[in-house]
Amino acid sequence: MKVLVINAGSSSLKYQLIEMDGEEVIAKGLCERIGIDGRFNHSAKGAKIEEDISFPTHTEAFERVISALTKGDNAVIADVSEIAAVGHRVVQGAEVFSKTTLVTPDVIQKIDDLKELAPVHNHPHALALWAAEKVFPKTTPQAVVFDTAFHATIPEKAYIYGFPYEAYEKYAVRKYGFHGTSHRFVSQALAKHLNKDISDLKIVSCHLGNGSSITAIDGGKSVDTSMGFTPLDGVLMGTRSGAADPSAVLFLQEKLGLNPKEMSDYLNKKSGLLGIGGHADNRDISAAAEKGDKKAALTKEILRYGIKKYIGSYAAVMGGLDAVIFTGGIGENDKSVRADVINGLEFLGLSVDPDRNNTRGELAEISAEGSKVKVFVVPTNEELLIARDTLELTQK
Amino acid sequence: MKVLVINAGSSSLKYQLIEMDGEEVIAKGLCERIGIDGRFNHSAKGAKIEEDISFPTHTEAFERVISALTKGDNAVIADVSEIAAVGHRVVQGAEVFSKTTLVTPDVIQKIDDLKELAPVHNHPHALALWAAEKVFPKTTPQAVVFDTAFHATIPEKAYIYGFPYEAYEKYAVRKYGFHGTSHRFVSQALAKHLNKDISDLKIVSCHLGNGSSITAIDGGKSVDTSMGFTPLDGVLMGTRSGAADPSAVLFLQEKLGLNPKEMSDYLNKKSGLLGIGGHADNRDISAAAEKGDKKAALTKEILRYGIKKYIGSYAAVMGGLDAVIFTGGIGENDKSVRADVINGLEFLGLSVDPDRNNTRGELAEISAEGSKVKVFVVPTNEELLIARDTLELTQK
Repeated sequence: MKVLVINAGSSSLKYQLIEMDGEEVIAKGLCERIGIDGRFNHSAKGAKIEEDISFPTHTEAFERVISALTKGDNAVIADVSEIAAVGHRVVQGAEVFSKTTLVTPDVIQKIDDLKELAPVHNHPHALALWAAEKVFPKTTPQAVVFDTAFHATIPEKAYIYGFPYEAYEKYAVRKYGFHGTSHRFVSQALAKHLNKDISDLKIVSCHLGNGSSITAIDGGKSVDTSMGFTPLDGVLMGTRSGAADPSAVLFLQEKLGLNPKEMSDYLNKKSGLLGIGGHADNRDISAAAEKGDKKAALTKEILRYGIKKYIGSYAAVMGGLDAVIFTGGIGENDKSVRADVINGLEFLGLSVDPDRNNTRGELAEISAEGSKVKVFVVPTNEELLIARDTLELTQK
Repeated sequence: MKVLVINAGSSSLKYQLIEMDGEEVIAKGLCERIGIDGRFNHSAKGAKIEEDISFPTHTEAFERVISALTKGDNAVIADVSEIAAVGHRVVQGAEVFSKTTLVTPDVIQKIDDLKELAPVHNHPHALALWAAEKVFPKTTPQAVVFDTAFHATIPEKAYIYGFPYEAYEKYAVRKYGFHGTSHRFVSQALAKHLNKDISDLKIVSCHLGNGSSITAIDGGKSVDTSMGFTPLDGVLMGTRSGAADPSAVLFLQEKLGLNPKEMSDYLNKKSGLLGIGGHADNRDISAAAEKGDKKAALTKEILRYGIKKYIGSYAAVMGGLDAVIFTGGIGENDKSVRADVINGLEFLGLSVDPDRNNTRGELAEISAEGSKVKVFVVPTNEELLIARDTLELTQK
């Protein structure tokens, strides 16, 4: 059975067609510049399509995806009906959606209604969902998988901020957490690899990429996470500040003469690695630090220091620790981040073996032989988890 | 030798006269409503003065303090010259003052210049310092002791926020930390009590009161602290929110239609225990929770949870932990906070003995017999440390 996984933005639509027997990606691609002009990339059977094309809306993008999948030499299916189900990634499910859900017009409307809480994501998701409803046959079930859903188990003491309670009751301001699909995928993958019941494990999962979040996973459930009301909170990211004294935010806002929206841009797009070290990409920061750039070296330190603090904090939250996972672009590929974060945490039973740590992009233990707490690199695969969830829900 | 310790606010002046042989408070009092009308309280030799009086400025307040100390039946000194030195508490020393400093006109001006970073505190401090210069004899040396100074050892990786670097370079936005005098006092008192060299100890000091801050003290030096650019950051406080997703602050600011100053008031005066649980005082929250108030119970949980996270985080920062200190109004008196924070941290070698924990306001070990990491209640005494610092500096 084949599941089509969709990750739609305001002007983009990324997709993978996954053959679930073997969990293999048999075609994938990207529609870009939707609503602007249009650019299409598609790969299947080792061949590539690249073309400029008109994508006035997500509808035309979906139509082109279906034709690429079903027509020509590289077709991987004969007819759209061979797609058993379509699974869509949605960033913000808030308290409305705490699990993977079948798509209905009412569900799409509710996702759109949450756009205030996720201005960049939820409305485009809704547009793409309406388009998919039009383009795919009524007989093809569709599901939505939420980035926030895995964090629905976070207790109130961890998700309520110190604001007046009206902030939560009237304005829905609370910690939601993101990257839930990734944290769920890697923690389940690790439990399986260790041949252990996940309900027996206390895991800190570090998803480190352009956006980074760290999650405390106790018995398979998220109990706290570093991202908050939005994906700005937590550790230093490519262009995002991470956590900061709220007073410092207001002080700067006044100094810089910015309104709340402009200040939000300052914190989301001009801060983080870029704001301190001059480069948004972790690899560029490392290269600059290597060449003696002091601000880049400082940026490296701040990043590592922030992650280390979360590991200690989340071990305390769970009352112990069995494993730390590194995943995401940085977590899977940057051995220096992993080593620097773990070194110094020997008192928690953590350690990194330099030889084992010389790995990238594969599931691998990097902790030293006999280490009380295991440290693993676990490659994430959000699309696969979306496909699994979608299949499970739609084939019931 | 006698040292007079001054803690001045915009309309108040609190003082203690301490006999340094024996470190005993021989007189203390409070001038209130300075610049409004005036109210004076003074205690010495077991007797009290309470009077309404005119305090147009801090000058008249100091004059009344001196007359109360030197005249009448309860006089404790015959002449102002018996005061060996005057020590003043100052909240914000920023990067200008990293240690206790002799008062000169230039120093007072520099303290006043920092008022932008501490709008509520530094200008009143400067006013009081100018008044003290006028009122006390030129031969009486005076010193300023800064709340921030103990945190001057915090490394750059811990004090730089994730904002663009201009925030630090142009606007002096960084973590400063506060309560430094308290954290220094209790950590030194504990080392002395344990008969250990403080340079061998890794301590997490929890100063919990109306304002709360938690400090990682490695080898006697502050290496990180929960308060930040301002005393708003960190854990939940009486009326302060503590840390929060910066985006949530901006979102609420827009929703509520507040400018940065008004939003700052919202976070500083209407949030925290008051904002969530309806009472700013921890005792009132506990009493309400006892009676079944759910929001008060939630507030209790959030407070305890936040402190627990810092203990784990700061153990990680120091690469280990020898002792946890509870101090401040809540830390010294609320055994339930102490027990709830420590319970669950057994994996770090922490524990609380319920009988030992049944203590308040005295230096006492509350960890269980044989506990690897010691837990102590250590009463703070900022005035005494200010007096010691002042004496040491002025008698050199």
